[in-house]
Formats: sequence, structure tokens, C-alpha cells
Amino acid sequence: MLMKLIPDHLTPEINLHIDKTRQFMEAQGMDALLVSSNSNIYYTTGRFFRGYVYIPLSGNAMWFVVRPVDIDSSPEVVRVRKPEDIPAAVQAAGLTPPRSVGFEFDSMTYSGTQRLMALFPGATPLNGSIPLRLARLTKTPWEIDRMKEDGMHQTEVYRRVTKCYEEDMTDVQFQIEIERILRLEGCLGFIRTSGNLMDINLGSVIAGDNADNPSPYDFTMGGAGTHPSLPGGADGTTIRPGQTVMVDMNGSFNGYQTDMTRVWCLGEIPRLAQKAHKCSLAILRACEKAKPGTPVKDLYQKALDIATAEKLQDYFMGHRQQAVFIGHGVGIELNEPPVVTPRSRDILQENMTIALEPKFVIPGVGAVGIENTYVVTPRGLNSITRFPEEIQEL
Amino acid sequence: MLMKLIPDHLTPEINLHIDKTRQFMEAQGMDALLVSSNSNIYYTTGRFFRGYVYIPLSGNAMWFVVRPVDIDSSPEVVRVRKPEDIPAAVQAAGLTPPRSVGFEFDSMTYSGTQRLMALFPGATPLNGSIPLRLARLTKTPWEIDRMKEDGMHQTEVYRRVTKCYEEDMTDVQFQIEIERILRLEGCLGFIRTSGNLMDINLGSVIAGDNADNPSPYDFTMGGAGTHPSLPGGADGTTIRPGQTVMVDMNGSFNGYQTDMTRVWCLGEIPRLAQKAHKCSLAILRACEKAKPGTPVKDLYQKALDIATAEKLQDYFMGHRQQAVFIGHGVGIELNEPPVVTPRSRDILQENMTIALEPKFVIPGVGAVGIENTYVVTPRGLNSITRFPEEIQEL
Repeated sequence: MLMKLIPDHLTPEINLHIDKTRQFMEAQGMDALLVSSNSNIYYTTGRFFRGYVYIPLSGNAMWFVVRPVDIDSSPEVVRVRKPEDIPAAVQAAGLTPPRSVGFEFDSMTYSGTQRLMALFPGATPLNGSIPLRLARLTKTPWEIDRMKEDGMHQTEVYRRVTKCYEEDMTDVQFQIEIERILRLEGCLGFIRTSGNLMDINLGSVIAGDNADNPSPYDFTMGGAGTHPSLPGGADGTTIRPGQTVMVDMNGSFNGYQTDMTRVWCLGEIPRLAQKAHKCSLAILRACEKAKPGTPVKDLYQKALDIATAEKLQDYFMGHRQQAVFIGHGVGIELNEPPVVTPRSRDILQENMTIALEPKFVIPGVGAVGIENTYVVTPRGLNSITRFPEEIQEL
Repeated sequence: MLMKLIPDHLTPEINLHIDKTRQFMEAQGMDALLVSSNSNIYYTTGRFFRGYVYIPLSGNAMWFVVRPVDIDSSPEVVRVRKPEDIPAAVQAAGLTPPRSVGFEFDSMTYSGTQRLMALFPGATPLNGSIPLRLARLTKTPWEIDRMKEDGMHQTEVYRRVTKCYEEDMTDVQFQIEIERILRLEGCLGFIRTSGNLMDINLGSVIAGDNADNPSPYDFTMGGAGTHPSLPGGADGTTIRPGQTVMVDMNGSFNGYQTDMTRVWCLGEIPRLAQKAHKCSLAILRACEKAKPGTPVKDLYQKALDIATAEKLQDYFMGHRQQAVFIGHGVGIELNEPPVVTPRSRDILQENMTIALEPKFVIPGVGAVGIENTYVVTPRGLNSITRFPEEIQEL
């Protein structure tokens, strides 16, 4: 009962990912690339396995499989016990010995990278994270379809959020019920992220003044959490009248992700919070007009200008602690490039997928503002998280 | 509203962690250690923050805080914008310039480690993961109390597992209901692991023949999962009469973890499966007698010997794909040293905390066997996951 590592219907798509990566390898002067991180194994295989993908600049890519045992071998798919078995197999396949090899410097451990570098002692080691990041920076039509599918599942979940609420619930209890409907809708229960500053389960629910608790994590909003080992997000506060609840719950349904935030409230909320929420929508409407070629930093500047014109800059992206970005790329990982900061050097390109989340924290009320995930098209940003954007009553 | 990074009541405990780490730094000839991984920031602080902990072999440790903003400064707690601010602050504190500095080679990225190494250009870089791992290998009384507390919460959840089941449920649906009661009991919703081979949510539920599906992950049991991006665990199979459901659901309640597995079944299961389950209990009873000083590999050998004497070796730790370990350390991370393999060079020490999970996969039936987390004491292994060990009917 052996199975093909890459099923036939996925082969053209995977070849496309590898060809895109090769373009950027060539620009870096990289003869070969050894892929080893979970996210990039998935990107260059269409599934996760324990092992390595070897991409030569010319010649066929090779997949080295440690586990599982039920993968069929082929000239390109070779079973190995350990990475030290790779060089001989590369040579046996008739591939030219590489003068330079890329390794995933930005995601593999120092020890793990050194072990892999020792496999090619004659070759110059280069940062293989760069071509993979550049290849993944724009999505293929197939990837965009996966993300649209993910967005539809997420929308389906958000439709049922109001029903998760019961009187006198805490933010944690509300979040647990949303997690359950996410999972019942098919969320795989695990979010791939890059870096080590997103200890995340399936997302975040922030109620009332907890929005103003600063957190160490790389999220736009803070929250104290319920324990010092994970100081972010819901803190067990009871959801109170006149306050907001920001729901930023995601979860991958198919290996790709979309990121969406909406706001609920209990009873009426103060005009300042209503005004800030409208300002978030105005910022998104303005940013949605951006076309390929626009500097990413212009999106941040536009958002800040609009917030400042409305005299809301003290609440923009936080209050006691303010985040200096309003969005980020999304795809296999929740936090991909480009990051929408004032110092970004990235330029919007067609088929980038980015989440924009201009948010505000109003003391005594909570967080307002929304987040959508967009595909960059020649006509502007196209939202794939289509769900009503107004604040909804619990 | 600034708060102390380390509250007074935790200071003696954190000093103990740092002193333990220093002992092993000294053995490695390491003048200073720069802590940067999430798990070790927690170990050396008692909370998570974004930043670094600098431990000199002599002199006071220093904490460098990037975020959150609401941490009070002190001579030992210094706010920084970036790691490049560290050397000047170390010097200003009057600490001797280190001739050698440890960095977390086994958990930090290659790029991230290089950036930190550049802060101390004159010093010899050493593997700082080693003293931290050795310090964490045995737990303090406070840590053991946290783990006992975690085990009690977990037991409370397992008491309610049977009630989560409804007729014709799939393994995924059953798991979702267990996740919910875990979270309602206080599980923080995120499991810290080491390495990149545990894409895990809150644990695993394996029903019937899915137990025999090989997986790429570092778990004892496999499972196909529901999507190729996360090929492990529950696969959406309906729970059938005559089959087992293995529940290995954890979740940290307080920054520390315990690991526990129990088995449920629907109707009667074949004698072979019953026999294998009894064999798992016999293996645990034998291993529980081990005292400090016992080589860890002896536990594996004893388990294999007992399984072989019962002619169950073909089902031991899997069937189509067999894992070659029966347990692992547990603590801040779910998978800590020692790993209980035939090639382990570790020796059992008092106050190690290890999970033992001798399991069997019976084709056509599913997985059987249990897992407990133990504290190593002078009188043997003391279970802190006390819950009935027999197979229970759904």
C-alpha cells in the first residue's frame, strides 16, 4: 500500500512552485537549495513529510523522505534514514555538484543548519530562505483558490459567532465556543506561523479593557491572557454592556489561511468607538484602491493620515502600546511578507495576498476596526473575507 | 501602571533556575549565556516577554525587555529596542566582558543566532542550549508542584471524556468535544514543543484502523489526519463497534505540561487487543520500579522484552510503522529530554519528569496501551496522571 508522494493532479502546481523558486535562486547565484522547514516542505511538495527537498538550478528536483514509511520511491523520491544520505543520492542521480547551496537560515535552527551545511563541504552556503520567500510572496491561481475556499469556511464560522454568546460569558468562554464551531467547520486545529513571536492557538478574542493590556507578541492587539506563560489574548474578563468584543479567529482549513477580524458589542457603545470603527472602514476603502506598483509603506501612511485627520491617532493600533504595522501577507503561514509598516521597501505585486487590519483601542470600551484578507489585482485589492463589516450586537 | 517583570514571590524560584543553569555553564567553560527562545525565557523569568536574558557566570543576571511596554525598569531589568542595545548595557552594569558566550544553537534560527553572535565579536560562541537543557532535565519542587497541578486538571478532563461521545461520531467530532472540555477546564490552548516535528493542536484522538496509518511526525502513534498539510491524528473515521479510541489530549494549564493517554472502546474488542493493553500495564508496572541511577535505555529494553515475551513485538509502538521510543521527558515543553530509546545515554535522576507510553497497534481494532507522566523518586517512578487505566466503554 505505497502511495505517491505527490499525486499526479498536483504535479503541475508543485512544478510551478519549484520553477518560481528557481527564478529567485538564479538571481541569488544559488546552484541548489535544500528545503527543510515544515512550511516550505509543504510549498514544494503539496503535503508535509519528514525529510528534505533538493532543488538544483538545472535538472530535476529530488525529495528525500525519512517518514512516513508508506511513500513509494521513484527516481525523484528517495528514501533516506538521515540527511547524511543525501549527497550520495544527488550524485547517483547525475546532478552536477553545486558550487553554492541555499539553506533555510531564517527558519532552521543554528545546529540543524550547520548539520545540513556539512553535507556540501565544498559549496558556498547561502540564505535559501530568500528565494523561497520571494517565490511565496505572490500566489498562483491554485493557491488563491485555496485561500478563497479558506475564506468561505471562515465566513461560514463568523455567521455563527453571535449564536456562540450567552449572557454573562467571559471572553475565554466565548472564544472556546468559537473555537468549537471553527473546528466543526473543518479548521485543522493548527496555524502555521513564521518566527517565534506568535504562540497562537486558533486566534484571539479581545473584550473590553483587556484590549489595552500590552502584550509581548507580534499581534496588532494585545491582551493579558490568563497565565504569565502565554501573556496575550483573552484574560477571563466578563463581557460587559457598553463594551466591544473583537473576534480575530482564523485556523487553516486546507493548508492555506485567511485572516479576518470583526467586532461584536453588548448594548450601545460610545460615539468615539463608533467613529473609530467607521474610520477603520474608511481606511480599508482607501487602501483597497491601491494597484500593483504601489509601495507597501504608502498603505500604512494612508491609514495613519486618515486616522490622524479624524484625531484618532492616540487610539490607532493600540493605546498604551501601539503596533507600527497595519497588515501582513498571508498564505501557508499566518504572518508572511510583506509587512505593512512605514519602513517597508516592498512594492505591491499582482497576486500578493495581504491582510489589512487598521484597528483602534478605545479605553473603557475595547477594540474596534476590522480585518480583511485581499488579493492584489490590477483593479485594486479584492477581499476574500466577505462578511458584514459593521459592529454587530451580541 | 508599570509592573515588575518577576513578582517577588517568584524571585527565589527563578534564582534557583539560573543557579542550576550556571552550574552547567561552568562545566562547559561558558562565561555568559544569552537566553532567547520562548521556552527558556519562561524558564529564566517565570513569564514570557519579548527580549533576552543575559546570565553571566558571576554577577547578577540581566533581563532585556523589548515588549510589553508596561514592565518596570530596575538595575537588572533594562528596556531595549533591539538586541544591539545589549552589550553597552552589560558593560554599564559593570559585568566583566565574557570570553565565551552561549547562544541557543538548538532552538534559535541560523540568522537569529548570527545576529546575536555579532553582539560579542571577541567572545567564543558556544552552544547555550546545552546548559539550559541540563538544568531543565531535573525539576525543582515548585516545578513538580506545577506539573502535579497540571495532571490534576488533566485528570478532571479525562473524567468527562466518556460524556463527550455520541453515537455515530467521527474521531474528529469526538476530539473537538474533548478540546472544548480541556479549554473549559483551563487549558491555555497552546502546547510548547521543541523541534519542528510536532505540528500539534491540543493532542490526538486515534480511532480504529487510523492508528495504523504512518505519519511523518515525532509522535508514538500515527494517523492520517484530514489534510495532507497536517498528516497526523484523527482522519474523520466514524468510531465503530469492536474498535478502540486512543485519547492522548493534553494542553498546558500553567506553563508546565503532563502527558497522559487512555483508551476507550465501543462494544467488545478482540482478545488480542485486550492482551496487548494488559501488556502495556505490565510494562508500566515493571518500569515504575526503576530508581535513580538506572540507564534510560533499560526502560526501553524492559518494555521490548515484555512485549516480545508476550509475542506482541509486531504490534509494539505501531504496526506498519513502528516508533523506536517509549517515552520522553515533559515539562515546559511536551517533548523534553531524556528520550526513552534503546540508544539513550541518559541516566535516570531524581526529579526528572518523564512520560512513558508503551502502546500497541492491533490491525482492524486500533491502538491500545496507556501513558502516564512520572516523577523519578528514590523509591521509583511516581505517577502524576492518576486516572483508571483499564479500557473504558463509550
